[in-house]
Amino acid sequence: MTDVAKRAGVSATTVSRVINHYGYLSQKTIDKVHKAMEELNYQPNSMARSLQGKDTQLIGLIFPTVSHPFFGELASKMETKLFEKGYKTILCDSANNKEKERDYLKMLAANKVDGIIAGAHNLGIPEYENVGLPIISFDRHLAEGIPIVSSDSYQGGRLATEQLYQRGGRKIAILTGTNESDSPTNKRLEGYLSVLKEHQLEPMVYHFPLEHSPFLKATEIRQILSKEDIDSIFCTDDLTAILVLNKAQELGINIPGDLKVIGYDGTEFIQNYFPQLSTILQPIDQFVDLLIDLLMKRINNADVELDSLYQLPVRFMQGQTS
Amino acid sequence: MTDVAKRAGVSATTVSRVINHYGYLSQKTIDKVHKAMEELNYQPNSMARSLQGKDTQLIGLIFPTVSHPFFGELASKMETKLFEKGYKTILCDSANNKEKERDYLKMLAANKVDGIIAGAHNLGIPEYENVGLPIISFDRHLAEGIPIVSSDSYQGGRLATEQLYQRGGRKIAILTGTNESDSPTNKRLEGYLSVLKEHQLEPMVYHFPLEHSPFLKATEIRQILSKEDIDSIFCTDDLTAILVLNKAQELGINIPGDLKVIGYDGTEFIQNYFPQLSTILQPIDQFVDLLIDLLMKRINNADVELDSLYQLPVRFMQGQTS
Repeated sequence: MTDVAKRAGVSATTVSRVINHYGYLSQKTIDKVHKAMEELNYQPNSMARSLQGKDTQLIGLIFPTVSHPFFGELASKMETKLFEKGYKTILCDSANNKEKERDYLKMLAANKVDGIIAGAHNLGIPEYENVGLPIISFDRHLAEGIPIVSSDSYQGGRLATEQLYQRGGRKIAILTGTNESDSPTNKRLEGYLSVLKEHQLEPMVYHFPLEHSPFLKATEIRQILSKEDIDSIFCTDDLTAILVLNKAQELGINIPGDLKVIGYDGTEFIQNYFPQLSTILQPIDQFVDLLIDLLMKRINNADVELDSLYQLPVRFMQGQTS
Repeated sequence: MTDVAKRAGVSATTVSRVINHYGYLSQKTIDKVHKAMEELNYQPNSMARSLQGKDTQLIGLIFPTVSHPFFGELASKMETKLFEKGYKTILCDSANNKEKERDYLKMLAANKVDGIIAGAHNLGIPEYENVGLPIISFDRHLAEGIPIVSSDSYQGGRLATEQLYQRGGRKIAILTGTNESDSPTNKRLEGYLSVLKEHQLEPMVYHFPLEHSPFLKATEIRQILSKEDIDSIFCTDDLTAILVLNKAQELGINIPGDLKVIGYDGTEFIQNYFPQLSTILQPIDQFVDLLIDLLMKRINNADVELDSLYQLPVRFMQGQTS
């Protein structure tokens, strides 16, 4: 394909687009590419595509891991909806493995999938810059021109913190990830900080690196609960909130009397099996619809104008922990 | 392909094997198929395969849903290990949708994946009988000749029930699925019954259909806990055990004083976030290794002799609920 591109004087992406009838192309470009293909006797895999027929269209899904309830739920719903649209889903669990994510991306980009939805947490993956495929990002900045679907994390952070304040919280801590990642989720921390500032309260910020095991995290949480003077905790994900509840119970701390806790995500799993947890609900069904609608737009027309960021609203779910 | 098979006087599976150089075939059969392909001017998609190269080998994974922690964990680990072996994973969430599972199977069987690992719960899917692809089943009878990887569910059921008995349980109930499915998991119930019989205790068996929502299940569990005289409950999955704990707390039932509870599965998720739950640990890492090793054997040699059932041992994990 590189040879065809060179001979036709166009980019490999353009050759790929001609072969796959994807994106806007001038007739002149199409003719140049076809001529170069003939001269080089280049056989694209369009025969494979036509043999496969519509029912083998593939979409790549790059998420940290489906063993996490949030991403498991998102992946399950994406797969179901993509299947209804005639697509099959190739799963990539990228968890904490940048090389794996890069490898996947290269494979997916090598003309074998119709598009990618990526919501992984690894940083510094230059392949996203020039992958030459329709991509929509979930909740993370990947590269210029790749739209991001997210929820309003700043508002979510404000909502949780404001709730804790209204219920009497004055020593309000936040447990969150490390903020090196260029992700809209950092806005949850910003929302928290803005509410504390309005009420002239002192922020207490605890960062947990993504790669920490739940066991290590739980140990650190136990230390924080034993040593620090805290009456409320906002956790920027529900699983961390569960660790807080477990350790509070071990230490005999009364919830919500001595300590109020609010989580974040509100998956169906949490609603079904931890209904007691107060949390911020992310709109998972709406994420799924929007991610797939945008990807389909890009697949049908590579040059369609899309916003750079789509922010869906979140809401607070009152449980018994706040 | 059916026409080629007819003309060559062989099965479609044999044609598929010739095209894909897969399984043992006599030279005579290979020649017959090649001749029929020539006469019919049949173009197999082998060119597509060679264009794709090794890095596009695909394995289909058919599980109920990755939004369930057990299958999410299994799928995540399978995907990771398959990737290391140069395979990509096509995900199929078959949850409660027999038609979807059949559609997937047809698509996967149409010569586009190298093999399938299936652990879904739908019944009566005749496509498994003649799919003509290497398949390994997880914990479910699919068809003659498809090996099953499972854990020792009978022993698991005995282990849980014996633990409850030893801790003083004399009114021991079991909460399990409906036993219409031809699945080794039904053996958990058999193990429970065998222990009760040995101790001359009366069984109390509650079946919950798979399609019941967690909310409905929780409502029914609340009724059982309020009305029935029960001192111990064995749940054949951990999520049901969590519903029991939630409802017991609502009703002010002391755990484990008034009621002992043991679950089943023991995922890393449960170990990390519900360490208080006593449960039977299934060997998920060993499942993953064995499923993939067996599938690779079948892919490399379609006629390799495999056992019909592989049963891995389970063990009891003592928490604070029993």
